[in-house]
Amino acid sequence: MQEVGFLGMGIMGKAMAMNLLRHGFKVHVWNRTLSKCIELKEHGAFVEETPAAVIKKCKVTIGMLSDPAAALSVVFDKGGILEEVCHGKGYIDMSTVDAETSIKIGEAVNDKGGVFLEAPVSGSKKPAEDGQLIILAAGEKALYDGVLPAFDVLGKKSFYLGEVGNGAKMKLVVNMIMGSMMNAFSEGLVLADKSGLSPTTLLEVLDLGAIANPMFRMKGPSMVSSDFNPAFPLKHQQKDMRLALALGDENAVSMPVAAAANESFKKARSIGLGDLDFSAVYEIFKVTEPSP
Amino acid sequence: MQEVGFLGMGIMGKAMAMNLLRHGFKVHVWNRTLSKCIELKEHGAFVEETPAAVIKKCKVTIGMLSDPAAALSVVFDKGGILEEVCHGKGYIDMSTVDAETSIKIGEAVNDKGGVFLEAPVSGSKKPAEDGQLIILAAGEKALYDGVLPAFDVLGKKSFYLGEVGNGAKMKLVVNMIMGSMMNAFSEGLVLADKSGLSPTTLLEVLDLGAIANPMFRMKGPSMVSSDFNPAFPLKHQQKDMRLALALGDENAVSMPVAAAANESFKKARSIGLGDLDFSAVYEIFKVTEPSP
Amino acid sequence: MQEVGFLGMGIMGKAMAMNLLRHGFKVHVWNRTLSKCIELKEHGAFVEETPAAVIKKCKVTIGMLSDPAAALSVVFDKGGILEEVCHGKGYIDMSTVDAETSIKIGEAVNDKGGVFLEAPVSGSKKPAEDGQLIILAAGEKALYDGVLPAFDVLGKKSFYLGEVGNGAKMKLVVNMIMGSMMNAFSEGLVLADKSGLSPTTLLEVLDLGAIANPMFRMKGPSMVSSDFNPAFPLKHQQKDMRLALALGDENAVSMPVAAAANESFKKARSIGLGDLDFSAVYEIFKVTEPSP
Amino acid sequence: MQEVGFLGMGIMGKAMAMNLLRHGFKVHVWNRTLSKCIELKEHGAFVEETPAAVIKKCKVTIGMLSDPAAALSVVFDKGGILEEVCHGKGYIDMSTVDAETSIKIGEAVNDKGGVFLEAPVSGSKKPAEDGQLIILAAGEKALYDGVLPAFDVLGKKSFYLGEVGNGAKMKLVVNMIMGSMMNAFSEGLVLADKSGLSPTTLLEVLDLGAIANPMFRMKGPSMVSSDFNPAFPLKHQQKDMRLALALGDENAVSMPVAAAANESFKKARSIGLGDLDFSAVYEIFKVTEPSP
Repeated sequence: MQEVGFLGMGIMGKAMAMNLLRHGFKVHVWNRTLSKCIELKEHGAFVEETPAAVIKKCKVTIGMLSDPAAALSVVFDKGGILEEVCHGKGYIDMSTVDAETSIKIGEAVNDKGGVFLEAPVSGSKKPAEDGQLIILAAGEKALYDGVLPAFDVLGKKSFYLGEVGNGAKMKLVVNMIMGSMMNAFSEGLVLADKSGLSPTTLLEVLDLGAIANPMFRMKGPSMVSSDFNPAFPLKHQQKDMRLALALGDENAVSMPVAAAANESFKKARSIGLGDLDFSAVYEIFKVTEPSP
Repeated sequence: MQEVGFLGMGIMGKAMAMNLLRHGFKVHVWNRTLSKCIELKEHGAFVEETPAAVIKKCKVTIGMLSDPAAALSVVFDKGGILEEVCHGKGYIDMSTVDAETSIKIGEAVNDKGGVFLEAPVSGSKKPAEDGQLIILAAGEKALYDGVLPAFDVLGKKSFYLGEVGNGAKMKLVVNMIMGSMMNAFSEGLVLADKSGLSPTTLLEVLDLGAIANPMFRMKGPSMVSSDFNPAFPLKHQQKDMRLALALGDENAVSMPVAAAANESFKKARSIGLGDLDFSAVYEIFKVTEPSP
Repeated sequence: MQEVGFLGMGIMGKAMAMNLLRHGFKVHVWNRTLSKCIELKEHGAFVEETPAAVIKKCKVTIGMLSDPAAALSVVFDKGGILEEVCHGKGYIDMSTVDAETSIKIGEAVNDKGGVFLEAPVSGSKKPAEDGQLIILAAGEKALYDGVLPAFDVLGKKSFYLGEVGNGAKMKLVVNMIMGSMMNAFSEGLVLADKSGLSPTTLLEVLDLGAIANPMFRMKGPSMVSSDFNPAFPLKHQQKDMRLALALGDENAVSMPVAAAANESFKKARSIGLGDLDFSAVYEIFKVTEPSP
Repeated sequence: MQEVGFLGMGIMGKAMAMNLLRHGFKVHVWNRTLSKCIELKEHGAFVEETPAAVIKKCKVTIGMLSDPAAALSVVFDKGGILEEVCHGKGYIDMSTVDAETSIKIGEAVNDKGGVFLEAPVSGSKKPAEDGQLIILAAGEKALYDGVLPAFDVLGKKSFYLGEVGNGAKMKLVVNMIMGSMMNAFSEGLVLADKSGLSPTTLLEVLDLGAIANPMFRMKGPSMVSSDFNPAFPLKHQQKDMRLALALGDENAVSMPVAAAANESFKKARSIGLGDLDFSAVYEIFKVTEPSP
């Protein structure tokens, strides 16, 4: 497979398509706003007018859309995937959507004779640019095997997780842990500060110990300086917490820390921080009055 | 400084004293149960009968006791540090105690003309053996500077944090974040399992991403196989959560995730898991009935 | 209006229909399992074969079904309300369902020319028998005004809350507060017990003070004696907590206490208490090991 | 017993002493600021210069001080109770203090030959004025029996709870439940408001149902109109939550709802609401931004 379709030229999709081009893939791209395809075209991509046109040209097409609505739209709307998908064609949705959306898309593609893989990724802009994503694939195993050369370019590791829906679930679990950790981290930074300790020294101490991790290292300094430029918007993190809690509800798993973290993210949303980076939850712990 | 006293031959203290011996320090040791000093003696340590005897022989003495009661006992009881500490002598308490205990010990040592440093560590048995502790020192700066050759042997990095109490506080903040993370991790592992995902695959996915950290890597596999051999007992972790929350209370810092994590550790204590490793909190999230 | 239809002869529906009969209403009843209508028939009710048959006979029909699925079924399935509802007929759904279900039913009834009212109630078996329910109505105001004679028999007070969905929402808010209170109460009872105080004395003290309420008075003694005979099953209470939290999520309202209570109800479900009374959440706080 | 000493003429103490006067008791009063005794004197009280002078004149003396420090001061400071308490004299501390403070005072009084009762009350200004307090007594049973005529005037009911410390603990348990309920109530009021329901209607609905209680009835309307005139200051409520959680910690009782409520009270303190009524926790749930 050296020819691949790519739907969705947002921050993530564009970086991923560019990686494929750089590694010698022929890439047919489409985006709702076609102007976002210009840079790709300059690097050799073929620009198509509709998702259906991409599917027609390519045996395998990847989608990287912003949300479930967009992910459904490229499949079911006029000019969408269903118009051209058929036996011998595969569609891989790498968007972050809930399991239900994935399952719905998968069934529609299968009904037309095509094969489907959901493959959400862990990692944001920088790992996308560097081909360092973690790919959580589930669905048609043969399609997974076939698309591995592309996955090898896009990510540092891919997992095959079984039936459609499992990719979405795995991503939710990871993001839930991440969201709780971000809260623990924020609480600790504020506690250090209010207790007369330097948050910056705390960052140094943390980075040497058993809980040192890239997120603390990357986000810590910008949080301390109140820089919340969104890599992963808080409202999306909160949505993932909600969906993970819903998954826990289905399975009777009690998760009090995740629930508390979710409420803090909601608190952050309630004061208008939803479009900032998810690390902006830090702001809600700040003490504005001297303690009595 | 090539001669140093060492009080307390528990798991941590013994490993640390051994490291000092290996690096050419002359070490005078004491332990409540003297038999625990035998191995050290075989490696060249001088065994003393009381803490006071150690202080008398050494300009600088380190204490590594199991809890605040023991830390106070070596100072204030008969045969204790106060009987011999005087101008020109320094005592460094590396035990994990609360700020009040540190301050009380520091004042008593100062009253006798001695100098004091609290220096709790981050890291347990393995880092102690490998000289890879993180040392959080606070108190007399000159004593800190003087003891750096020993700290260089014991730890991979030491911090000087200002006035006595700050070392204890910094350690609490770090342990609070760690305790919340352990809860987030446990919730995630159980959620994965109950949602039909492999906990082992989750560990792999986590280890590749932005929240990869040594604790998840070390504890994850043993948690999945229900091995909770205590490196850091759950009841001690819970005590640190409680003390960190109390520190937050003093400073009006709201920490809902830490509070939820603390209650889960208490739940674990309530069903008899207090003496197991703190990762045993994982057990309380397990679902014992099929969801309706 | 002295003639009324009544769909659903569960615990609640039967008690309500009986009340209407006792107060001189002519009542046409239907139930999926017709045998449940026998007692009503003996008291003068007319038994019909389908929901449609009830609608055909009555200008106003009340439904009291067990869950959203049943509530939808009597409307949309074969022999359902939609087959006969038309201009001049009103349907009042008193089941506890989510806002979406109410809205869907309301729209379908309206499309056929009928008028609709949702009217969930607060109160369980005993208030239903005694005509002491609290009725939370929303939808067609004229239908509300017309059905007031029946509401006066069924409840001690009815509220008109505006557009369809508001009845469901009001009930969720009330049940959310109730669920959090039950958790606070349970935690307090266990705390008293483990602190060497008599839970029974606590019940007496509570009943004299500012937070005395019927629920503590009714449930307290049976909780202390571990009697959890279900008046309101725990799994239904937990579902209401979940739906209330979802409503909070939509509106960016952070509710940490409700979230913590929800996780405790989930914990109770996870150990198989879902079918007991919601007061069985008490069981999860019990301490099974002596504290260290 | 028709002669009684009374220490502490704060809001509560003054109302209680006035009640005793009104019911024919001879009352000897003392207050740190003597001017606060003037009104009592006009109603027939004898004003003394020190706590010791009160003890000297009366066989039984009641204390109602603002906090543990004041409660200890009237006992241990110069001119304090210990100077005159002796065999045949009894001291009853009705202040709200922790169990340790009660125990310390009790032991000191016993050492001088006197008898001691702790008797904290449930109820604030209004019940104090109306003689409708709930009295939670513990300690010397004979003293309890002897003081019952006074308790009958001060309260609507008194309980004898056993050993000193149990009164304090019982009050903590009650206040903990109350604090969690206030949070549940606040969350519900905000949720109603943001969901398009009238908070005032919610108050009406609540007042008719199973969880109707005097606190909701009294506080609800003022909360809705943002009136937080302090009857029970938020910082004191939060302190009681903290102490109740500490009691739970000692006994390994996990209390996630109380812990979440405590963090919300701390959040309220952190933004400067500590001196307002505890119902001001309502303010922290308000949403200041439209949800996305």
